[in-house]
Amino acid sequence: MTERAGPVASAFATLATCRQRTLALCEGLSDADMTVQSMDDASPAKWHLAHTSWFFEEFILQPRVAGYEVFDRRFRYLFNSYYEQVGARHPRPRRGMLTRPTLAEVHAYRQHVDAALGRLSRAQPSLDIVNIVRLGIAHEEQHQELILTDLLHLFAQNPLRPALRDAAPRAASSMRPMHMHAFEGGRVRVGHAGEGFAFDCEGPAHDVLLQPFALASRPVSNGEWTAFISDGGYRTPTLWLSDGWARVQAEGWQAPLYWREIDGAWQTMTLHGECSPTPSAPVCHISYFEADAFARWAGKRLPTEFEWECAAVAQAGDADAGQFADDGHWVPHADQTQSPLENLFGGAWEWTASAFAPYPRFAAAPGAVGEYNGKFMCGQFVLRGGSCATPRGHVRPTYRNFFPPHARWQFSGVRLAEDRS
Amino acid sequence: MTERAGPVASAFATLATCRQRTLALCEGLSDADMTVQSMDDASPAKWHLAHTSWFFEEFILQPRVAGYEVFDRRFRYLFNSYYEQVGARHPRPRRGMLTRPTLAEVHAYRQHVDAALGRLSRAQPSLDIVNIVRLGIAHEEQHQELILTDLLHLFAQNPLRPALRDAAPRAASSMRPMHMHAFEGGRVRVGHAGEGFAFDCEGPAHDVLLQPFALASRPVSNGEWTAFISDGGYRTPTLWLSDGWARVQAEGWQAPLYWREIDGAWQTMTLHGECSPTPSAPVCHISYFEADAFARWAGKRLPTEFEWECAAVAQAGDADAGQFADDGHWVPHADQTQSPLENLFGGAWEWTASAFAPYPRFAAAPGAVGEYNGKFMCGQFVLRGGSCATPRGHVRPTYRNFFPPHARWQFSGVRLAEDRS
Amino acid sequence: MTERAGPVASAFATLATCRQRTLALCEGLSDADMTVQSMDDASPAKWHLAHTSWFFEEFILQPRVAGYEVFDRRFRYLFNSYYEQVGARHPRPRRGMLTRPTLAEVHAYRQHVDAALGRLSRAQPSLDIVNIVRLGIAHEEQHQELILTDLLHLFAQNPLRPALRDAAPRAASSMRPMHMHAFEGGRVRVGHAGEGFAFDCEGPAHDVLLQPFALASRPVSNGEWTAFISDGGYRTPTLWLSDGWARVQAEGWQAPLYWREIDGAWQTMTLHGECSPTPSAPVCHISYFEADAFARWAGKRLPTEFEWECAAVAQAGDADAGQFADDGHWVPHADQTQSPLENLFGGAWEWTASAFAPYPRFAAAPGAVGEYNGKFMCGQFVLRGGSCATPRGHVRPTYRNFFPPHARWQFSGVRLAEDRS
Amino acid sequence: MTERAGPVASAFATLATCRQRTLALCEGLSDADMTVQSMDDASPAKWHLAHTSWFFEEFILQPRVAGYEVFDRRFRYLFNSYYEQVGARHPRPRRGMLTRPTLAEVHAYRQHVDAALGRLSRAQPSLDIVNIVRLGIAHEEQHQELILTDLLHLFAQNPLRPALRDAAPRAASSMRPMHMHAFEGGRVRVGHAGEGFAFDCEGPAHDVLLQPFALASRPVSNGEWTAFISDGGYRTPTLWLSDGWARVQAEGWQAPLYWREIDGAWQTMTLHGECSPTPSAPVCHISYFEADAFARWAGKRLPTEFEWECAAVAQAGDADAGQFADDGHWVPHADQTQSPLENLFGGAWEWTASAFAPYPRFAAAPGAVGEYNGKFMCGQFVLRGGSCATPRGHVRPTYRNFFPPHARWQFSGVRLAEDRS
Repeated sequence: MTERAGPVASAFATLATCRQRTLALCEGLSDADMTVQSMDDASPAKWHLAHTSWFFEEFILQPRVAGYEVFDRRFRYLFNSYYEQVGARHPRPRRGMLTRPTLAEVHAYRQHVDAALGRLSRAQPSLDIVNIVRLGIAHEEQHQELILTDLLHLFAQNPLRPALRDAAPRAASSMRPMHMHAFEGGRVRVGHAGEGFAFDCEGPAHDVLLQPFALASRPVSNGEWTAFISDGGYRTPTLWLSDGWARVQAEGWQAPLYWREIDGAWQTMTLHGECSPTPSAPVCHISYFEADAFARWAGKRLPTEFEWECAAVAQAGDADAGQFADDGHWVPHADQTQSPLENLFGGAWEWTASAFAPYPRFAAAPGAVGEYNGKFMCGQFVLRGGSCATPRGHVRPTYRNFFPPHARWQFSGVRLAEDRS
Repeated sequence: MTERAGPVASAFATLATCRQRTLALCEGLSDADMTVQSMDDASPAKWHLAHTSWFFEEFILQPRVAGYEVFDRRFRYLFNSYYEQVGARHPRPRRGMLTRPTLAEVHAYRQHVDAALGRLSRAQPSLDIVNIVRLGIAHEEQHQELILTDLLHLFAQNPLRPALRDAAPRAASSMRPMHMHAFEGGRVRVGHAGEGFAFDCEGPAHDVLLQPFALASRPVSNGEWTAFISDGGYRTPTLWLSDGWARVQAEGWQAPLYWREIDGAWQTMTLHGECSPTPSAPVCHISYFEADAFARWAGKRLPTEFEWECAAVAQAGDADAGQFADDGHWVPHADQTQSPLENLFGGAWEWTASAFAPYPRFAAAPGAVGEYNGKFMCGQFVLRGGSCATPRGHVRPTYRNFFPPHARWQFSGVRLAEDRS
Repeated sequence: MTERAGPVASAFATLATCRQRTLALCEGLSDADMTVQSMDDASPAKWHLAHTSWFFEEFILQPRVAGYEVFDRRFRYLFNSYYEQVGARHPRPRRGMLTRPTLAEVHAYRQHVDAALGRLSRAQPSLDIVNIVRLGIAHEEQHQELILTDLLHLFAQNPLRPALRDAAPRAASSMRPMHMHAFEGGRVRVGHAGEGFAFDCEGPAHDVLLQPFALASRPVSNGEWTAFISDGGYRTPTLWLSDGWARVQAEGWQAPLYWREIDGAWQTMTLHGECSPTPSAPVCHISYFEADAFARWAGKRLPTEFEWECAAVAQAGDADAGQFADDGHWVPHADQTQSPLENLFGGAWEWTASAFAPYPRFAAAPGAVGEYNGKFMCGQFVLRGGSCATPRGHVRPTYRNFFPPHARWQFSGVRLAEDRS
Repeated sequence: MTERAGPVASAFATLATCRQRTLALCEGLSDADMTVQSMDDASPAKWHLAHTSWFFEEFILQPRVAGYEVFDRRFRYLFNSYYEQVGARHPRPRRGMLTRPTLAEVHAYRQHVDAALGRLSRAQPSLDIVNIVRLGIAHEEQHQELILTDLLHLFAQNPLRPALRDAAPRAASSMRPMHMHAFEGGRVRVGHAGEGFAFDCEGPAHDVLLQPFALASRPVSNGEWTAFISDGGYRTPTLWLSDGWARVQAEGWQAPLYWREIDGAWQTMTLHGECSPTPSAPVCHISYFEADAFARWAGKRLPTEFEWECAAVAQAGDADAGQFADDGHWVPHADQTQSPLENLFGGAWEWTASAFAPYPRFAAAPGAVGEYNGKFMCGQFVLRGGSCATPRGHVRPTYRNFFPPHARWQFSGVRLAEDRS
């Protein structure tokens, strides 16, 4: 499919590839692996497969294809995630009860939807369909990432510590010393504008005022995190936000999620099985609370999302050059590039100090699609940059991910910042 | 295998048949169906398959077969249910996390254990092995019943209301009018004595004093239960034990478990799908609290376990003649026999007024096997008679099943009693 | 008031004394001490004062005194404890919210009720009033005991460890060695019959069969309990019932309630402040689970309630001779008498192995009074003998107290038993 | 005390007046009223009395008065609120267990501290003491407000609906129609700078960019809120943030806190007893979730805290002219002034759309005082303007109050905003 084919055909071609990639991620998984739900926040891979198909049925096929026959009308209830305007839905914490429909039926569902999307693409739909197709692709990519994060959580509950797949071989690397990279700040344009796809919450573009700041040349490493642990970081209440310290005590946090001490040495569970955390690699599976406490311990602070974006734009590097899910190595590793801000894209998401809030003049889109991001703008913090579980091409400098401050099951790390005069 | 083969060979032959029946019950179930856990009290079918194999490894093969190689030494942790003397074990509410070992591996585990049992049986072990083999059979049969009860609970969580299997065809039947059958009581011998197998909690046999009483000729029916509902049974606190009424309010009970009202008519979920409860069939999936409240509403009471046993012995009927799991019809139906106490065995377990307590001079067996029943003698009530989910041959007149008074996911019903002068 | 005055006058005279004693117990308590509720199971002393007055309003004054004016019609809602037939009521866990009515208003309420009871007694009511007056006295006495147990729980939550009152002085005592006292058993009459007052659950009197048994000459002592702790009793799962072991782990039990270790020595909180537990005194504030585990550790068992009653009747001692609340020493101490079964009455309640169940042919009384005991006959165990917090004269050999197996805030201890041939 | 007396003497004089006002608020309360804790978030008035005294002991008397003798060294544990650097402390949800120390002892504690403060003030301490004295005053004022909010919560739990005090008489008033007042925005200075006292979180002062906006001339009224209720506001999920809707369902919200419907008419509980909400008065006791949902329903939005501050500064009104706690009327009423932004100060706190976050270059003070605000900068939203429960003189245009988005027991209301071009 060439660019000459026009934006509609191009979008559908990208979509087809994207849909295939979702299935490819699930290779090697059993029916049970794909059906069990390991916690309320996580969903089974089979559910992700079905939900991403439902999304196209609900938002493209039914509104735009005359005479489209839904695969099974009961799936609207089963596979709607959180769209109130679509109607009642199966409770999120009960997604793991759905041993039926079978995995084969869900695969048939996907084929049914894919076939209809193929027919639609060949019917030369009007150009305005591109936006919703692109949203569908971005949505599917988000669920690809969730398939990996949710599977890791499931496998980490299993005393047998299974691996999803062997790690792709890669050369050993060492992280370079961290130094602080200065930025002048001032009146800075942030947020998405222009042609390419972006989520609604990335706009409107607008100006903000930034005071001079500096951003670390690389994320905090496992080795540095081990020093934090050894120095009593998890036992020192004055390093923590009040809610964070309450969480440390209530849940007995002593290290990042998936770490445990065996015979005096830390081990970490990964999608490639349990292994020693590489000292020079970015730390991962930490909460906002931990990121913030580490920064305080280090005499630094977290960057705001606008400082991060300002630096990302200034660096002008290629957002797609980092370590992404397509590389098949689902543990963050140190960047080999010589860019001034290493590992900014890919590897591990970076917590920022910014609460996830609407940009000035943000307005949710009309209809159920408007529920995509806006209704979550409360109680969450922004993460930036993507991770090794994010599909390549998914993130941008303006991209805003968001999770509650206690969340740890995403591939989330931290980069330090500080004030400059 | 004839009786001439001797008790050891006979026990092993029965065991082999029993083990096959466990697998047969799971026909038609997917890997996911057998792995998901629908609540803390229920276990996945795959776990039942593995645990019943572990039982033989732990209590027969390892102690008695020199050089026996365990299939996987990690399974001792994964598939020990509650034996403290065996050591640490996977937490019960987390059994559903075990997507690994795979179903194929668990089948291989069963074959490994079955092969070793086969070799052991051919090695002519001494006669004393019979007791533990019989215990293993009875244990496996209990888990056969749990496979059915736990699957029904799982399928009832699914909005698609799947069926495990089509119901075996059977002739329509009508229940005869209930009348009260009088017994004189007096000094009565209860509990197990003699040759056949019985669980430890069924003995020692001992005498009890019973005052004259009467037992209903049949269990309470769905039709009668509907009258109780219509009369406000679930809204009248004075009918209920205090703890029962608290449960009614906290959980919003309005009918037996698995019943729901659709367009003004009750439907009930069964292993054969959702259907209308047959008015003449025994009511099922009620708690002790509900049984007790119904009895009070009806101006009767529950029988004690000794009244029940006394009547069962007096009736001298064949305990195996009732409706059992082997019939493949997993909803209680009205008895076709003309015995004075219809449906006493099979159909639905019958709650008694007796707390599950040790008989005088009861002593738990030494070792881990002693944990089988004794440590549960607190906070539970005795049920008698077996159900349509119980394997034929499993129950006896002295058999004591037990569950907490709020439990409803077993095939539990109720038979009324009253005092006589 | 002499006996010549007749049973009605006598009952009212006893009632007046009893009502005074309730107030006397509260001397030295502040408004706050009497209003705060320290847990759902406990009630504030002010609530006890009001509830016991409401009881007479509801069950004597309103039904029997023409034109009786209730003190405040809203109190029926506030101070009904659990009588469903009386109507809606303030939720039990919210009793501590009632800073109003004030303590002065509650005292005025008591005076209003007492004055009306006085007028009623002088009006020469018919003889049939005696039963309900006696029930009112027994009810008030039960709440006298609860005032002490609930206050101890409240004060134990306070880091200042306040004392209700200085202990009455008493001579030091040492406990004699424990020996087992044999009883033949056989067909034994149990339960209440005859003239005196008894609660409904103490009857009907009936025969039971007892096998030969022995009962310990005295309760288990603090010194013996310390040995149990030192021997790892609280860390050994095989000593415990399954539900008990779950409780030990969930709540971190390491000793009886109110014990804590300070600088290597056990201290116990009492109504006379915190002090060292006297080694020779009966252990107190243990649950059924702990009593049962201790007995298993000691190679003994708990007595059934009928064994206890049989022994109490055989001993023919004076039930009122023990250590009761009137003595003003609210910590159990060793008996100074030379009776064969020391401390059987008073000191500490003794857990029995018997679930609290209705006696054969038990029927609850009609009306709200019938809710007194019957609806609690599920999930509780019987305790016998009374405690140092029980008013003298309240208990009998047939008296049945009952609490859930995990309850520890009552003055509950344990006496061992064993089988004899 | 005149200004000539110098800032130190002036500060101590203000402090003495402030301390008296705390006691005056508690007039008419019983010991029980002041000791009971009605929920984890609320504290007993007695605890507030003691904690505010402990604050001076800990931060002024002990560090600055040689030989100062603490009143009771155990109070450091009992009355420390949340200062980790001060050490271990009594758990917040257990503050209501402290029937001891008695109320008299707490009053003696206050006198002990006040006497020591008096001696200190007469000893002519150096000028640098002013800052901590001013902080102590501001701190005491915050607890004066909490005494009222927490008492209202306690009395609202009581079915008798007691009143703290009769309402101060006031003339009837009617609210004027709401109109939107436009502001140009642009580069605006926000945050505290200069001489007067402010909390650390109000600075540093810095510039922000605001787009043109409009702010409502007055808060949303009870009458408008009733229209929102009638229009199904509490039943329409699309009006709500996702977390807000979850809360509506979980807690059954149907109206502001303290509202209940009696015979078809809304009643609201206040410190002057239960009464009809005045239609023209500002709505109160709503959460951020409700404020946000109402704004969406009204086609408006919440202002950011900087829009609010910008408008407050532009209006240049007198922050002390509003309805404050000193007026003794603890229900918001409509403003009588003719200012363009009515009720901006006093009446009810106004939720803003701004998460409570540190201003650029914010740094917590060293020592335990640094825990005052910084560690709560997560999961909360900013409220502005003070309420009828706030002491007059306590708030400023830069003042930032903060509570979690679900909190409703404060005197919190809402003022609408919108975008302008």
